[in-house]
Amino acid sequence: MYLYQMEFSSRLLAEAVEGFAKLPGIGKKTALRLVLHLLKQDPAEVRAFSDTLARVREQIRFCATCYNISDSDTCSICANPARQKHTICVVESIRDVIAIESTQQFNGTYHVLGGVISPLDGIGPDQLHIEALLKRVRSRDIEELIFALSPTIQGDTTIYYIQKKMEGLPLKVTTIARGVAFGGELEYADEMTLARSLQNRLPVDRIVRHG
Amino acid sequence: MYLYQMEFSSRLLAEAVEGFAKLPGIGKKTALRLVLHLLKQDPAEVRAFSDTLARVREQIRFCATCYNISDSDTCSICANPARQKHTICVVESIRDVIAIESTQQFNGTYHVLGGVISPLDGIGPDQLHIEALLKRVRSRDIEELIFALSPTIQGDTTIYYIQKKMEGLPLKVTTIARGVAFGGELEYADEMTLARSLQNRLPVDRIVRHG
Repeated sequence: MYLYQMEFSSRLLAEAVEGFAKLPGIGKKTALRLVLHLLKQDPAEVRAFSDTLARVREQIRFCATCYNISDSDTCSICANPARQKHTICVVESIRDVIAIESTQQFNGTYHVLGGVISPLDGIGPDQLHIEALLKRVRSRDIEELIFALSPTIQGDTTIYYIQKKMEGLPLKVTTIARGVAFGGELEYADEMTLARSLQNRLPVDRIVRHG
Repeated sequence: MYLYQMEFSSRLLAEAVEGFAKLPGIGKKTALRLVLHLLKQDPAEVRAFSDTLARVREQIRFCATCYNISDSDTCSICANPARQKHTICVVESIRDVIAIESTQQFNGTYHVLGGVISPLDGIGPDQLHIEALLKRVRSRDIEELIFALSPTIQGDTTIYYIQKKMEGLPLKVTTIARGVAFGGELEYADEMTLARSLQNRLPVDRIVRHG
């Protein structure tokens, strides 16, 4: 197909399409489809959507304790008295918090690093919320730190760096289990995952109980 | 993967994600990615995008002559004195106007039907802007009507219906060429297209001149 400049007879339509096309993964054709869809919706609903977008950017804050996304200074997880404050799950991004929360299997609190150490990308420990994590661990009664980072070299480097900084603290440090994904085909698992799964094998009764 | 309910610690975030997820072809995960992207953008830019969405729904109108999308009562194509008013290209939707305009090969005006006749979908001539087209053809000095409808049974039925209604009018009625798509592989063309392409074959010099 030819790449062409789309010609719009309406300036407003052109602006709306350009706005959508700036979003990641959305091209001009998809953007046009989304705008034409909005034009068919109830004006009040479109107005509400537009208001939400403006407010989400202007009013959303980051929790002063864990750097999770929040509507106020302290996020609803840190502010919840039912959550165990002595367990911190260390994650890379807000998206990971949402993924773990959606499992409904974790009742502790989080700490969002904002990334992992990656010298090639120019991300060192100072660009991440590591200092805040150390302060949090030192000043409060934290019993366990669970690392839920991507199982990559960068993730492992980050775990190693933070663990070094915490040496001597009376703290249990764990990482979420790594192995073949549930429901995945064994033959498609990569060698590294398969090799580690063999090394860190589990008694069968633990799988049966949790599975 | 399990289907789960996403858990958000922020009500605003949840609302924004739901808003995006209502758009066609956008699931909750993509919606979340889009919202997190917006959170990283300049607030003024997000505000401008939000404003555009509200305005596009409230202010956009349809041209009183051709039913194209427009910022005012008459669209910029109908209002343009350089466009040839005696040629009307009949299309199904606004999207088709944009597609044809983008080729920069047409200098006439349009008439957007709003669909094609499709009894199975409950769309008869009365649901389309056919009456307005007939009025337009009768009251003005129209020389040629070019049908640029989808090459389907419904499209052909619509052409047949409109042509019947115009019998006796001193008017040239044509349809855009149908045949194998430029750049397409012949073996993948469907039988109907291939058969019609054989019937309506063109002298080679015409292809060479325009190709």
